[in-house]
Amino acid sequence: MDLEVVTVGTELLLGFTLDTNAADIARALAPLGVRVVRRTTVADDTAAIRSAVSESLDRTGFAIVTGGLGPTRDDITKRAVAELYAAPLELDEAYLQTLRNRFAKLGRGPMPETNRSQAEVPRGVAVLPNPRGTAPGLWFEDTTGVAVLLPGVPQEMRALLKHEVVPRIQQGREALPGGQSTVVRSRTLRTTGMSESALGEQIADLCDNLGQISLAYVPGVSGVDLRLTAWQLPDKQADDRLAQAVGTLRPVLGRNFYGEGDVELAAVLLQQLRLSELRLATAESCTGGLIGAKLTEVPGSGDAYVGGVVCYSNESKTRDLTVPEALLQRHGAVSEPVVRAMVDGVCGRFRTETGVAVTGIAGPGGGTPEKPCGTVYIAARWGDRLESAGRWFPGERDEVRQRSAQAALDLLRRLLG
Amino acid sequence: MDLEVVTVGTELLLGFTLDTNAADIARALAPLGVRVVRRTTVADDTAAIRSAVSESLDRTGFAIVTGGLGPTRDDITKRAVAELYAAPLELDEAYLQTLRNRFAKLGRGPMPETNRSQAEVPRGVAVLPNPRGTAPGLWFEDTTGVAVLLPGVPQEMRALLKHEVVPRIQQGREALPGGQSTVVRSRTLRTTGMSESALGEQIADLCDNLGQISLAYVPGVSGVDLRLTAWQLPDKQADDRLAQAVGTLRPVLGRNFYGEGDVELAAVLLQQLRLSELRLATAESCTGGLIGAKLTEVPGSGDAYVGGVVCYSNESKTRDLTVPEALLQRHGAVSEPVVRAMVDGVCGRFRTETGVAVTGIAGPGGGTPEKPCGTVYIAARWGDRLESAGRWFPGERDEVRQRSAQAALDLLRRLLG
Repeated sequence: MDLEVVTVGTELLLGFTLDTNAADIARALAPLGVRVVRRTTVADDTAAIRSAVSESLDRTGFAIVTGGLGPTRDDITKRAVAELYAAPLELDEAYLQTLRNRFAKLGRGPMPETNRSQAEVPRGVAVLPNPRGTAPGLWFEDTTGVAVLLPGVPQEMRALLKHEVVPRIQQGREALPGGQSTVVRSRTLRTTGMSESALGEQIADLCDNLGQISLAYVPGVSGVDLRLTAWQLPDKQADDRLAQAVGTLRPVLGRNFYGEGDVELAAVLLQQLRLSELRLATAESCTGGLIGAKLTEVPGSGDAYVGGVVCYSNESKTRDLTVPEALLQRHGAVSEPVVRAMVDGVCGRFRTETGVAVTGIAGPGGGTPEKPCGTVYIAARWGDRLESAGRWFPGERDEVRQRSAQAALDLLRRLLG
Repeated sequence: MDLEVVTVGTELLLGFTLDTNAADIARALAPLGVRVVRRTTVADDTAAIRSAVSESLDRTGFAIVTGGLGPTRDDITKRAVAELYAAPLELDEAYLQTLRNRFAKLGRGPMPETNRSQAEVPRGVAVLPNPRGTAPGLWFEDTTGVAVLLPGVPQEMRALLKHEVVPRIQQGREALPGGQSTVVRSRTLRTTGMSESALGEQIADLCDNLGQISLAYVPGVSGVDLRLTAWQLPDKQADDRLAQAVGTLRPVLGRNFYGEGDVELAAVLLQQLRLSELRLATAESCTGGLIGAKLTEVPGSGDAYVGGVVCYSNESKTRDLTVPEALLQRHGAVSEPVVRAMVDGVCGRFRTETGVAVTGIAGPGGGTPEKPCGTVYIAARWGDRLESAGRWFPGERDEVRQRSAQAALDLLRRLLG
């Protein structure tokens, strides 16, 4: 089944607010075999809303619309879609009482008159109760198609989606001849250390044989994710095809593959350390704490990660990490000998078996012809084994730092693996 | 001037990737008086791309299209839009050489053949060079209207937007009769330490007198931003109205206001430190490096920030920050006496005049009835003055950590200010 999502909000178009609702809707409906085929965002404007919803209904016969239901926005979406369905608004006394009770319960005094309009319901429409807010969801349905209106506040939207919309779509599908037959399901293989195009070359030949599974490359600062999606297949078949495709790809990805789904590299590394009862310390210069932050983002990281030093000055490198003064003078703070001394120093200070270290020039200042911005040295140590490397990362300060942190963690992962 | 944004990507529709490009485009173009009136997302599908772009051109005559330009996606957007403009593809030898040089510089071996298609350019189209990636931007323009194709990778898209698209639109507008007549302009007042509803109560009465300026509350982990927007007013008038509105609101916000626009609290604090020639060190337990990461995200932070200790174990607290063993035993690692000892210890070790420290229970594990998850102690020191506080933050691990980092930086800001 295909449908479209229409999100309403001038703030969304201004670009100050990210549209998380459309993403949440897609993820919640995929397991039902629903494919979101288009997403449209329009301003808080009656004509724009009406035309976007009407076009969506023309194309797919099913539109989920979020936003523009609050009292301050004058329920603009409700009015626009009610016009489209030629459904006059009528006061729903029961809902009005629900609203009044809600205000009494919150102890915020009597209900403001502006909220009264929220109890006006288009004739013939199903009201989806919204226990978290004042604007109910509305389910319009006639021969034109189905339009479901949901509030724009993400928490309210998600609750209505889960408790009202998903069950109704599920029931509707089961009532169809053939019942609830298919799903849209994805699996994500995460890789790091290889460019999108190099990865593409390596697996290009395999892609023809993935058997009705689509493959998307999703590059980012953490590496390239490969997203495999089974489209509208019966449940078991989707699982089987995905398993087969993963089985085909995994061996080719080799050590570049580090995990599935939304697992982070830091979590994978921490698990490796935990299994071998190893402890980790970090020495960070240009990343300034980012590696520590990534590690401690993982619940339970304290089992393996004991801490580290942010040595954002040469003084700290010599004092806290015992990097010899002479080394700094001879090679500069951004150099392979220094990063090796840093990882030694931090393992010594924290008495850990493993460590990672980073030093580099994140930019925008500080680059030289010999060591341009983006020049980074990383090191990883495990007992007597010490690996180090020099890298050059493109991009701005934040990107260089993110890639550096990821590369350092990855160096230790590979060393342990 | 109105335009539409079309973002291409099956993974956007699947809801696994948030559409940051559309938001970035809107923000970059608003200062030019450009209003994004609709945003559409379609799959990696030629027919869907063609119809979305064609509809956008029909409505506004100007479409910015992102995504679907990578080598692995077979440059599907380029092909679809080239069809729409009836422009045959031709190999651009100069661009091919640029691509080859790029691969040579990255030291990743010879250019994969899949990248060759990226040097194929539709006839008559302006090529917008992309120094950060392999897919150039493309500017289609004829009587149908303007379609600008940009790569989907956010860093590449932003760079092209800034260096190629904005200047071209600006030039075009200036060439129009009457020149650049109106703008859409926003100013954002950033606050921290006050809830959205408390803020709302405080400024509710003022909101009626903002004179054609709209006000939006944008709450997040860093605090609540207040966004003031002037809609399509002449340049000078927009500035005046905004200045007047800011002048009305600022005094009411008091010390909760910390900056304007997209300035980060860490940058504000670093500037305070720089002006007073003070140096800062950090001691982080539950934030694990996040404060250091936030500080060093700011270019030039090394002027004031010298480093710190991530003490993710009691051992590190006593050894590296000289927190007395007895204090840890009597009060526990998450306590006000310990956070005060931490900030003292880190200032001593790094010989700085100022310091911040955090210890807390970010969750999901580790909470007790007395100290539930979200319990955090923060401290800030400036010379002899030492402030500390206990806080409880709602939300999940990441949110607690983000709010803790922000609160610690804010404590020092207020102490200095």
